[in-house]
Formats: sequence, C-alpha cells, structure tokens
Amino acid sequence: MPAKQRLLVIGGDAAGMSAASQARRLRSEDELEITAFERGHFSSYSACGIPYWVGGEVTDRRDLVARTPQEHRHRGIDLRMRTEVTAIDLDRQCVRTRDLDAPDLDERWHGFDQLVIATGAVPRRPDLPGIDAEGVHGVQDLDDGSALLDALDKERPRRAVVIGAGYIGVEMAEALRHRGLDVTVLEAAPEPMSTLDPDMGRLVRAAMNGMGIRTVTGARVTRIRTDDDGRVSAVATQDAEYPADLVVLGLGVRPRTELARAAGLPLGASGGLLTDFAMRVRGHDNIWAGGDCVEVHDLVSGRERYVPLGTHANKQGQIIGTNVGGGYAVFPGVVGTAVSKVCELEIARTGLLEAQARELGLRFVAVTVESTSRAGYYPGAAPLTVKMLAERRTGRLLGVQIVGREGAAKRVDIAAVALTAGMTVEQMTALDLGYAPPFSPVWDPVLVAARKAVAAVARG
Amino acid sequence: MPAKQRLLVIGGDAAGMSAASQARRLRSEDELEITAFERGHFSSYSACGIPYWVGGEVTDRRDLVARTPQEHRHRGIDLRMRTEVTAIDLDRQCVRTRDLDAPDLDERWHGFDQLVIATGAVPRRPDLPGIDAEGVHGVQDLDDGSALLDALDKERPRRAVVIGAGYIGVEMAEALRHRGLDVTVLEAAPEPMSTLDPDMGRLVRAAMNGMGIRTVTGARVTRIRTDDDGRVSAVATQDAEYPADLVVLGLGVRPRTELARAAGLPLGASGGLLTDFAMRVRGHDNIWAGGDCVEVHDLVSGRERYVPLGTHANKQGQIIGTNVGGGYAVFPGVVGTAVSKVCELEIARTGLLEAQARELGLRFVAVTVESTSRAGYYPGAAPLTVKMLAERRTGRLLGVQIVGREGAAKRVDIAAVALTAGMTVEQMTALDLGYAPPFSPVWDPVLVAARKAVAAVARG
Repeated sequence: MPAKQRLLVIGGDAAGMSAASQARRLRSEDELEITAFERGHFSSYSACGIPYWVGGEVTDRRDLVARTPQEHRHRGIDLRMRTEVTAIDLDRQCVRTRDLDAPDLDERWHGFDQLVIATGAVPRRPDLPGIDAEGVHGVQDLDDGSALLDALDKERPRRAVVIGAGYIGVEMAEALRHRGLDVTVLEAAPEPMSTLDPDMGRLVRAAMNGMGIRTVTGARVTRIRTDDDGRVSAVATQDAEYPADLVVLGLGVRPRTELARAAGLPLGASGGLLTDFAMRVRGHDNIWAGGDCVEVHDLVSGRERYVPLGTHANKQGQIIGTNVGGGYAVFPGVVGTAVSKVCELEIARTGLLEAQARELGLRFVAVTVESTSRAGYYPGAAPLTVKMLAERRTGRLLGVQIVGREGAAKRVDIAAVALTAGMTVEQMTALDLGYAPPFSPVWDPVLVAARKAVAAVARG
Repeated sequence: MPAKQRLLVIGGDAAGMSAASQARRLRSEDELEITAFERGHFSSYSACGIPYWVGGEVTDRRDLVARTPQEHRHRGIDLRMRTEVTAIDLDRQCVRTRDLDAPDLDERWHGFDQLVIATGAVPRRPDLPGIDAEGVHGVQDLDDGSALLDALDKERPRRAVVIGAGYIGVEMAEALRHRGLDVTVLEAAPEPMSTLDPDMGRLVRAAMNGMGIRTVTGARVTRIRTDDDGRVSAVATQDAEYPADLVVLGLGVRPRTELARAAGLPLGASGGLLTDFAMRVRGHDNIWAGGDCVEVHDLVSGRERYVPLGTHANKQGQIIGTNVGGGYAVFPGVVGTAVSKVCELEIARTGLLEAQARELGLRFVAVTVESTSRAGYYPGAAPLTVKMLAERRTGRLLGVQIVGREGAAKRVDIAAVALTAGMTVEQMTALDLGYAPPFSPVWDPVLVAARKAVAAVARG
C-alpha cells in the first residue's frame, strides 16, 4: 500500500476549496491528508456578491459563504483559518506558515506531496498621495465588505467617489447610490466598462447617469486629499477636485503571486501563474494552481490572458481536485465571457473587442443591431443592442457585446458556445434558438446580428 | 437581357412573405415580378401571439401583424388577399386561383417561372361526433382568434374545455383562465406537454393546477355534446363528461399540403413537403417550399421531422428568397428547440426526448438536477430543473429539457448551440458561460447537469 499522500492548499476560497473538496470526494482520509491555509476570516465565499451586500439586496453576510470552515472540516479537510503562507520551498517540498491571530508564535514548516496554489488576487491600488487615508476602501474580500458597511453605518458618508468604472466600480457605484449617497465615478478611459467597446460603453454611461450617478471619463486621478484628521476629503484629477467622504477603489485586481514569484514559479505577462491544461504549474509535476492567481488560455485569441472570475476559479479548482484525486480533467480555456448588471441595464460580452482583434492582427467586420428582448407586441419587450465582430473572408465569429434590459445578458451564452465551437456567423444564422413571444422576437437579436455580419463579410 | 421572371407565392404569412420580401430586396421589379396569394384577411402575422391576444396581454390585433398587405404592396409585391390557390399545374407551370370575396367570378390561371409553396398548417380536428358544433374553436390564424374573442365577449362562457395539452392547448388554457373562465384541459397522454418527458411534464401539470386549471390526463375524448340549439354543452371522455360553454382545440397542427399532394409533389411521413437544403422541393428545380407545410431535417436524429414553428418559417422564407433572388443560402436543419410559458413557469426543450432517443436505437444516460436561476443569495433566485440526455460511451449531448421560473427557458439556447456543434457533455462542462449573481449561480444549472451527465457516462 502506498504511503498516505499530503495535499497542501494555499487559499481557502473558490479555487482552493473546490480543489480540496473534489480531491476529498475521490480519495479517503486514509489515502490523502488535506490541509488548507486561509489568511482571512472566511472560506468559500462569493466575492462577486459583495456589491449586492453593500447595496442591501443581500442582507446577511452568511448568505455569501457557500461553505464555512466548520463544514469543510466536517468533510475531512483540515482548514486552518487566519494562517498565512509566507514561503514555498520547492527543493524541500514544504511551505512556511504564520498564525495571524498569534503573531508571537514561531512560523512553522509543512511538507507536501501535492501543492495547490490558490492565492487569488489583490485589488489594484494606484500609487497616489493619500491612497492609504482613512475612508479609502478596496472591495476584494468579505473583510473589505464588512469594513465598508461599518463605515457606511457609523460615518454616514454623504458623498462617495468611485475610482474606476470596470465591473466592480460600476456595481459599487450602484450599491452606494441605492444607499442614498451622492456618487461620482472617475474613469481614465473614454467610457465606463472598458471591457466593452466604447460605443457600447456609452450605453452603460447613459444608464448610470439615468440613475443619478455622475460619471467623469478621461479622468486621471492625481491625489486623494485628506482633512486634518487624515480622513479622505476629496479626490483630485488632472483638472478638477471631487469632494468625498468615502472613496471606493474599483480599478480591478492583479494576481496575488508574490509567493509563487519568490519560489521561482513561472509567471505570465500579467503576473499570473502559468499552468498546463490540467492546471499543473508549468514544469512542476506536483504543483497546481487555479483561480484569480493564474493566467488562462483564451480560445479565441490563442493567447494567455488574465481573467479573474469566480466561475473560472470554481471550474479550475474542480479540475485540480479531480487530477490530484487520480482522475483526469482539463480546463481547455475561456472565450472571455462576462456579464453584469447596472440598475436595470444588463451588460454582456464574449470573445474579442475591436481593440483586441486589431492588436492580434485580425481583420474584421463589426455590426450593431437594435432589437427587443421579447416579441415587440409582448408586454415587457425591452430594447437590446447587439454588437458582433466577425473575421473578414472566413466569417468566423470573433466576439459579441450585448447591452439591454431584462433578457439581454444571458443571451451572450449563445455566442460563447458558438465561439467555443469555432462557428462562422453564417452558421449562426441557422441556429435553432428558443422562440416564443415572451422570450424573443421571431428572429432572436443574436440571429439578426449574425445576418447583418454575414452581409458585411460578403461585402468584403 | 433576360426576360422578366415571374415568381408566384402561395401563402401570405411568415415563410411566403419572407421569401417574397427577400427576393424583392435582391431583384428589381424590372427583373422579377412577384405575386403572392393569401386566402385569409391578414398577411405576415404572428400566430404564436394569438394566446396572448386572447389572454389580454396583447390588446390590439394589429400588433400581431408584422407587415400589412399595403406595406407589402408598397415594396413591390403584388399581394392578393382572400385569393385561394385551388390547383398547381406543374406541366403547364401555372396555378389556378379563386377570389373568395367574389365566388361567382371564374377561377383564373397564372403562369410562373418560380413557385413558392408556403401553405402553412391546418389545426388537427379529431373526427368526433359534435366536433362542428357552435362553440368549438380552433386557434390557427387571426380569424380564429377574432372568432374566439367575439364568442368570449358576446356569449360570456363560464366553463371552457381545452382538448389537448401541447403548447397551444396549455397557452390557451392559461389565456382563458386569465379571463376568469373555469378551465379544464383534457389530454390523452399521461402528462401535459408531451414535447417533454413525462417527469418534466409533471412539473407543468403542477403549475397549471396551481393557477386553478383542472388537468385530466389519460383522457380519450369520445364526443362533444350539444344542446337543443346545436351549441356545445359538454365534452365526453371514455369515463366522464365535462360541462362546457366553450371548447378550444389544442391538438396541434398538420401540414396543409392538399394542393402539393394533388400536384404530385413529394411528401414525407407526416405529410409535409420534402425539400433539399436550399428549400427547393425535391426533384423540382423551380419549386420552393417553406414554413409549416414542410418537413425539416433534424440534425440530432438525422431524420426528417415535422416541426411547425414561426422561427423556422421565417428562416426558410429568407433562404428561399435569397436563392430565388440569385444568392445562395441553405437551411441546414433544426435541433428541436421549443420554449413556452405557462403562468410564471418557463418550459424549454431541445434535442431528443427519452422516447425519441430509444426509438432511434440510441443508448443514453439521463440526469436531472435542481438548481436556481440566479446565485442562491440574490433576490429573485428561483428553482429550475434541468434534465440532460447524453449518449453512452461517446458522451455526445442528445437533449436538454428545462422547467423553471424566470431565466429558465432561454438557457436552452446553450444546449441548442452545443447540439448544433455536436459537443459532448464533457466539453459542455468547460463552457465559458456568463456568470454574475443576478444571472446565474457560479455553476450555471446547465453546467451542473453536464457534470452529472459526465459522471453518468463514466459509470457506463
């Protein structure tokens, strides 16, 4: 009988705990010992849910926790909370940990046979004067969410400035607006949501303005001003100053890979770990990585990209656990799908934006159509804009962006599957999509866009 | 210069007028003369919208008409309303017409170079005693809808019996219930919606019962009883009698192909015209057919099937028009997608049912999962049941059925595209679908079903 294997997991959120849980399903405690380290207070939580918790749609923080540390322990995973991994020693095959609740204790070393790195992401904090002032909040984990809610309750801020109008920035702006604050969003790009082409981002800006959120684009933040107590008082840009009692950073995240870098593991251009299809760190047979700390393969561009999303983290964790547990599974890659909601506006994208396609040297056509979410005569039919990119000559689908009301966002899944299958826009025009008046016009908006793209490709 | 071509179109609804309009876009009036004949009072209308008109969600009949006869004429199509085609003469390449508003006039012959047959469907009327009684309504076209609404207004019926619990039967039952009638639905099959497997149909029955619609399954209707004035008074089954002031037939439709049959054109097993991929009637270079009068190729089973749906009719018409106009387009086939709504319940299917897969000699696994339409913690998250069929050994996706609340039906599009692409359930588990808490749990319900199907395939 083989000796009992030791699996160590760094990170107690989606990727790490999915890996641990799946490995546990496949291997008994006699075969595999699983220990996981989490530096924070929570395990397996939904970071994506934080804006809705701040906004009040979700009232109980516990709802955002899919599985508590106790639940993990009951399933045979030795999850150690508030335990930070401070080093990975590949030669000796062990990691060093520190107990954050007992900082006087010595650090400890733990040996492993298999190691999962799921260290997640760090919110981007621009290097600005005043960035560490009281009242400047990131929103990456539940502790951040708690701190922000505490600040809202206790300090009753009146004016909020959100820096950055990506998904998190826009969702947080809406959440703060829900709570009655006066909200300004500052964005360096020409439109909010630079995950969309500017012509689609403009629709998002209109919706934000419609709900009373002030948007300032082309805004380069130069400093955060503080009052005499060291509290935030305003955010300055190159040409203006916006008074603020509260600042939220919505500038996205970067991979948290300092440990991996120090250990000499391979990192990509955006600083994320590089893995093979089985989610093994490249060149290391027994080191695995998944979630917000890795780069992923983009099936449309053929390149590696950094796409931190909970849904990828869960899938990758599942795949790691299967492989560690002796099964076989791969993560073939992503196509760049993302959906979001701002007030009643649904926003979705998949595949490449115009700028991305151009950067890859692709020649393409781009078409935009206006349609409705339901048959025009059916109550609740709402306008919906679909933009579609297709490669010249081949007609291969390159990307889709959708902005609309109810029923807009998940329509992007049609294009996500078509991209995965490598379909042309002509093939898409024949797709047998669900049609009934409450759900779609007789030509689904995605089909209308595909037809227009076919015509554009034919024009050459 | 070639002589001016003459295109004749039989049928002024979706397929026929899409064909005519597309041909007109591609060919000028100098090149192509287009004449269309429609027996009814309306052109290009949405039959699918009739239940919502009867139910009151759509108040103006005109909303159901996509394009009026006048609009077609303004675009250079000579559309003759209330004109019935009574014969097709293939040898002489002409059709005979009759003016329904002037029955005394002689019938006339019209020559063609190209002919489009888009004669649509006929509601199935069982050969029962009393079937022609006053108060028995079909709901195939706008005239039927008008007659039914008139009856509701003038006769104020209290008790309605709907015969047949397919899409139209169930939608009409709900519409009548909306109007406050006491509604009983009689269905011969063990569950309503025999377009679903019985275990999924059961969920539909529960929803119907929940909104106060009585459902009687396993009911074989034997006669329609009338009062002394010849008006309907009850519907009798093999073992009971259901009092009725109004009877609606929801038994589906069959292809209206008497003309084509008389002309010797090729018909399939279900009586629909057989065409090639370009929608040309097989063996006839200049005869085209599309819409509810044709059989379609089923990409999953490889067989011809009869699938009368407005969305196919529109696509096929578009393709005919392109080909007649000198372009090139094909209709590759369907995968059997259908969606519907009963009260708040959304119902969807694509691909094969268990019974259909068995009939084709396929061995398969069937899995069912319960999930939610949104992240569990997000307001409005509603339960949703997904059933998935996959081929044994290969893991090829065979079919998906979804029953749930908001956000259930259009999720079937994911599977429709995956079926078109010939994906396996394992490939589906990696699909990069849109995820955000307002739209999906972190594992989309379709992915959860795919994972369960993968495990079932692996067990063999």
